[in-house]
Amino acid sequence: MAVTIASAASTKYGTHSESSSRELFGEAALKAFNDTSIGPNDLDAVYVGNFMGDLIEDQGHMGALLADHIGAREAASVRIESACASGGATIRQAILAIESGAADAVLAGGVELMSVADIEHVTDALANAADDIYENEQGLTFPGIYALMARRYMHEFDATREEMAAVSVKNHANAVDNPLAQFQKKLSVEEVVESKPIATPLTLYDACPVSDGASVAIVVSDEFAAKQSLDTSVTVLGTGQSSDAVALQDRSAITQTPAAERAAEAAYEDAGITPDDIDVAEVHDCFTIAEILALEALGFYEPGEGVRGAVKGETALDGSLPVNTSGGLLGKGHPVGVTGVGQIVELTKQLEGRHPNQVADAEVALAHNVGGSGASTTVTILGGA
Amino acid sequence: MAVTIASAASTKYGTHSESSSRELFGEAALKAFNDTSIGPNDLDAVYVGNFMGDLIEDQGHMGALLADHIGAREAASVRIESACASGGATIRQAILAIESGAADAVLAGGVELMSVADIEHVTDALANAADDIYENEQGLTFPGIYALMARRYMHEFDATREEMAAVSVKNHANAVDNPLAQFQKKLSVEEVVESKPIATPLTLYDACPVSDGASVAIVVSDEFAAKQSLDTSVTVLGTGQSSDAVALQDRSAITQTPAAERAAEAAYEDAGITPDDIDVAEVHDCFTIAEILALEALGFYEPGEGVRGAVKGETALDGSLPVNTSGGLLGKGHPVGVTGVGQIVELTKQLEGRHPNQVADAEVALAHNVGGSGASTTVTILGGA
Repeated sequence: MAVTIASAASTKYGTHSESSSRELFGEAALKAFNDTSIGPNDLDAVYVGNFMGDLIEDQGHMGALLADHIGAREAASVRIESACASGGATIRQAILAIESGAADAVLAGGVELMSVADIEHVTDALANAADDIYENEQGLTFPGIYALMARRYMHEFDATREEMAAVSVKNHANAVDNPLAQFQKKLSVEEVVESKPIATPLTLYDACPVSDGASVAIVVSDEFAAKQSLDTSVTVLGTGQSSDAVALQDRSAITQTPAAERAAEAAYEDAGITPDDIDVAEVHDCFTIAEILALEALGFYEPGEGVRGAVKGETALDGSLPVNTSGGLLGKGHPVGVTGVGQIVELTKQLEGRHPNQVADAEVALAHNVGGSGASTTVTILGGA
Repeated sequence: MAVTIASAASTKYGTHSESSSRELFGEAALKAFNDTSIGPNDLDAVYVGNFMGDLIEDQGHMGALLADHIGAREAASVRIESACASGGATIRQAILAIESGAADAVLAGGVELMSVADIEHVTDALANAADDIYENEQGLTFPGIYALMARRYMHEFDATREEMAAVSVKNHANAVDNPLAQFQKKLSVEEVVESKPIATPLTLYDACPVSDGASVAIVVSDEFAAKQSLDTSVTVLGTGQSSDAVALQDRSAITQTPAAERAAEAAYEDAGITPDDIDVAEVHDCFTIAEILALEALGFYEPGEGVRGAVKGETALDGSLPVNTSGGLLGKGHPVGVTGVGQIVELTKQLEGRHPNQVADAEVALAHNVGGSGASTTVTILGGA
């Protein structure tokens, strides 16, 4: 059964410290409902991606809580968690629910409230996405993990700090024109390289910020869309998902992300396309090195060549394959359990021709969402009319 | 596509304070693998039900972590959370994944480690399943919530403490012969009523214990089972899931559980059967009152009549509809994110004719799993050969 996107919307990502998860989720859902004739009562299910509500707001059971808050009290509801890939996993479970025939209309959303806690608490919470025994308790948190990957990549492929920094420069530039992005400030390569060190070789602007936000996508079956005369033009062409060891030390290599390779391969096969068919992509750039590894895992570049994307302008808005036109996690922000849903919101806008950084003739789009340092990856491919 | 149970197994529920979640999950998975020719490499996905790993073990991202730990490193993996219905929701998502065609073989498991934390911490963690703003912060935790439901039920239907206690007596009696149950000790009505008060009118033996444990079910498509020549006899006849307000105050009534009524109605319709067709059931008896409300919501008794089940022996092992032959949450234990999977393990044994409390001629079985005080409910109906 074909699945289409009936509506998709996000709050602004950034600091919403006067808000609660239910308020943020409600805001995004209301925006999505306002753009479609589907109402809360039409929803068979509400799936919620969230990573740290238990730790920040003492609130679990977000599926039922948020379904009720948006007026869909009776819908089947669950929370889906795969660390920072929670959003992408939520989208995929919603798509599978429709393909199974169990649901016609599912609201797949994500919400994360991070800024209300102090930074040590947020760092602790984020560390739950790593292997507690073999990583956290040894003092290794995510900046350190990605620094190891970056350092090794620089060594293996003679990449420079300045080249890596180009990813941040590009994504921050894209964020400037995205009103929903957390930052609207251009950065130079020098500013990135000379920003505060967080885990050598990575500096502050190599890393995504702490972000609050919510995003939702209402996904429906083709049949439901036709019956309700919905104005939908974006369809799901394919999905893929794969996993890997959570602890970096247990991986076969640290400059490749095999889970992303497998997820992409499955999604391309599901969609019946190749990497060459992708017109625009949102990839998981929690750190600059992560976008570079993503470009390689997704088949856009050979190993060691991904760093070229931003340096040569190939992944810029006017490049051959624009990547992270939203600003990405670096510029748009990274409310962790939301990001995979937010990518779908951004790509839906691209395929509907209404993105603030519109890519001309965008017809096929790809979203790549990673949990931890690569242990969970989802890839979703969307097609426009 | 029809879905069948290839294998299902549980650890003993109880205190495993020298263990970790990964070890417990591994133990249950190994038992399940030992009973089938399916190995970890055959799994397309690993779905994990867990509620409080973030709070007890500083460990999220359990999907990928546990998939890897059981040798299925590359499988699509997610954690599913719907409070105490996490297990039931995990089973249902696994079934939908197979019905969608995206997977042929899914290991749906649950794990919970609770006893390693002190009881105040566990109570706090459990409270995350309630509405933090409108319940927890007002001082209302689960014993109090269920006490309100019990008190109102006693008032509306002239039920007595002794009648409610009969549920605990029955389930503890069933647990005596279940080697995987946490308790193997018969109780009398007097012992239940005279045990320590926890939230009047409920006493200690009206409540389930704090439990560690893991359960897994390997669910596969019919086609996969045939291709692999698997010896399977238990099939999924139907599933249903619905939600309700998380906060008790927001419900239409507190002596009914409408989410369970809707989930049951959907599952019966999906299976093409009626409550009369059920031969054996595992229902969510976190407190004695919960089993009584479950019997009514599932259509086995009229409102106000559910209390009769245990009192008259109708739900006993030799009654017209044996309920919680495992010992239920009261006697078998309640590792919260596991329970819904554990119910499937117990019912699979019943339908395969190898349960320690075997019900003669059991052909159709029902599992009912509740999150919070009724905000999430899943119902799964299984059929034997």
